[in-house]
Amino acid sequence: TYVRGIHTVTLIPGDGIGPEISSAVMKIFEAAKAPIQWEERNVTAIKGPGGKWMIPPDAKESMDRNKIGLKGPLKTPIAAGHPSMNLLLRKTFDLYANVRPCVSIEGYKTPYTDVNLVTIRENTEGEYSGIEHVIVDGVVQSIKLITEQASQRIAEYAFEYARNNQRASVTAVHKANIMRMSDGLFLRKCREAAEKHKDVKFTEMYLDTVCLNMVQDPTQFDVLVMPNLYGDILSDLCAGLIGGLGVTPSGNIGANGVAIFESVHGTAPDIAGKDMANPTALLLSAVMMLRHMGLHGHANKIEAACFDIIRDKKVLTKDLGGNSKCSEFTEAICQRVLDLD
Amino acid sequence: TYVRGIHTVTLIPGDGIGPEISSAVMKIFEAAKAPIQWEERNVTAIKGPGGKWMIPPDAKESMDRNKIGLKGPLKTPIAAGHPSMNLLLRKTFDLYANVRPCVSIEGYKTPYTDVNLVTIRENTEGEYSGIEHVIVDGVVQSIKLITEQASQRIAEYAFEYARNNQRASVTAVHKANIMRMSDGLFLRKCREAAEKHKDVKFTEMYLDTVCLNMVQDPTQFDVLVMPNLYGDILSDLCAGLIGGLGVTPSGNIGANGVAIFESVHGTAPDIAGKDMANPTALLLSAVMMLRHMGLHGHANKIEAACFDIIRDKKVLTKDLGGNSKCSEFTEAICQRVLDLD
Ligand SMILES: CC(C)[C@H](C(=O)O)[C@@H](O)C(=O)O
Ligand SMILES: CC(C)[C@H](C(=O)O)[C@@H](O)C(=O)O
Repeated sequence: TYVRGIHTVTLIPGDGIGPEISSAVMKIFEAAKAPIQWEERNVTAIKGPGGKWMIPPDAKESMDRNKIGLKGPLKTPIAAGHPSMNLLLRKTFDLYANVRPCVSIEGYKTPYTDVNLVTIRENTEGEYSGIEHVIVDGVVQSIKLITEQASQRIAEYAFEYARNNQRASVTAVHKANIMRMSDGLFLRKCREAAEKHKDVKFTEMYLDTVCLNMVQDPTQFDVLVMPNLYGDILSDLCAGLIGGLGVTPSGNIGANGVAIFESVHGTAPDIAGKDMANPTALLLSAVMMLRHMGLHGHANKIEAACFDIIRDKKVLTKDLGGNSKCSEFTEAICQRVLDLD
Repeated sequence: TYVRGIHTVTLIPGDGIGPEISSAVMKIFEAAKAPIQWEERNVTAIKGPGGKWMIPPDAKESMDRNKIGLKGPLKTPIAAGHPSMNLLLRKTFDLYANVRPCVSIEGYKTPYTDVNLVTIRENTEGEYSGIEHVIVDGVVQSIKLITEQASQRIAEYAFEYARNNQRASVTAVHKANIMRMSDGLFLRKCREAAEKHKDVKFTEMYLDTVCLNMVQDPTQFDVLVMPNLYGDILSDLCAGLIGGLGVTPSGNIGANGVAIFESVHGTAPDIAGKDMANPTALLLSAVMMLRHMGLHGHANKIEAACFDIIRDKKVLTKDLGGNSKCSEFTEAICQRVLDLD
């Protein structure tokens, strides 16, 4: 259903460098003739009727209608009680899977080469339940909530993802030796999903062992699936292996095709408006989005152009080791897109 | 009180390669004339009066008397209901701080150089509380317990450690943006300890950000202090940066000088009894033990001898990239110890 015609996508440019890197992405999409039409919305939370924080109705309506969003960085809330926008968006649209492919970028030097893995993080429960109590003075408990339903959903998603993306194996990451019931339930659901997907290899590994092995040889990993907090940690660790949040794409996937793709770096207020930002993470997130929509031709072309320019090392933004402006880097990618035609 | 005379230490050789690497350590200590007398004990848990798992009375009595223990790897329990021996030991002796110095070893190649940091992990509560419930069918909660007392104790310990070991800074690792009350309490106690130790620099960082920064540039870190699970993860990650569990020492510290030092690698049953094991992690743990006892001269000499042999690359065990036996590696270190005299 996505492949033909023009598709409208909700664009949330975000704060700080958000607007600059968003227009960079729009320019490159235009050069690539990607059949995308953007509908810009601001999602900064407002107080709704019952005093509950919510995203503005016109943004909600746009996402509900378009189903697909692309989002730049959002300011960390400063007002007390103001929710994390990331958490609010995940919740509002029930984006239950956070997906981050970490693939080494040729020509961009890190201590590792040939990293090619995907972290799949349960995005709705676990340590992020928000349930906490003071038991007595000086004694606090936080509740980690694991449900059969959410565990099954993410486990199924991981195997479907592996199958659809020609990936050979899924590793469930857990601490069921310590949290026997909660992580035990999560692990059981992974095992059940594995039973249904015999074409994909399944392994299980303790989170600490994954971290140890990951920094020693990340090439041994393929798709990793895990509860919320473990995904928070591992996705950042893996991003570090390939060069950091400036080059790592991310997608938040919900039911029925709903999804928001985003760069996960910060708003970089110090360089905002100075034409110095690096649009790579948002661009690669937009490429993930195209693939999610079945637009593989456009995705491949844009991705290849971006990687070509990084490999060439002639036109790079400062954080990538060059001294070009955001607009120059963007222009170089556009030119390369045209050359690839 | 430790510095003069002969000190008795409880030795828990452990399973698998445990006995071999323990005798390697004993030989090297003898060559170095370290004033240590060993009292061997088996700690494998037994069922006590009320059906409760406990460590054997003679092992408990030995530790209570000597206060200091050195421990090789222990088998993961197979019998259902049998507790993790590591957890049982931490609990029995209230070993509240797990300390792991991660220092790059010259001549032992990893993607990183100049790593020189220490992870300090709260060892008694947090996600390891063991409290879990099924709420309704398919809904499980695990409780993370954070207390003021344990948080304060570990925070104080971290700053004291920094001061006593000439370390410039302490970083508190947390997710207080998500677990506001529990990690919030932990963080508050770290801030309070920082107020009392103005000579040591204090910073705070989210766990995910630490992981990201750690794999990009570990040299920016010095002492890190954190709740139990985060320490489980980060200590393994950091061990990976310098070459893995085979070369990383560890100490579990309790009140009133009580402490157990241990190698944290496995029992390696496949090579047990074959004179192939690498005693480095246990030896460096024993060196930590000597320092804990104030025996710095002996500690420095043994450590230097071990690092010299690794740097020389002539006599190395298989896992270190050589083809020497455990006994040959041990002999080389002994010889070097004598040369250093
Ligand atoms: C901003 C924060 C709430 C968030 C998280 O902890 O999940 C971030 O670290 C992420 O990974 O998206
Ligand atoms: C063996 C296991 C219970 C333990 C833990 O999770 O703490 C181990 O990983 C460690 O770090 O000592």
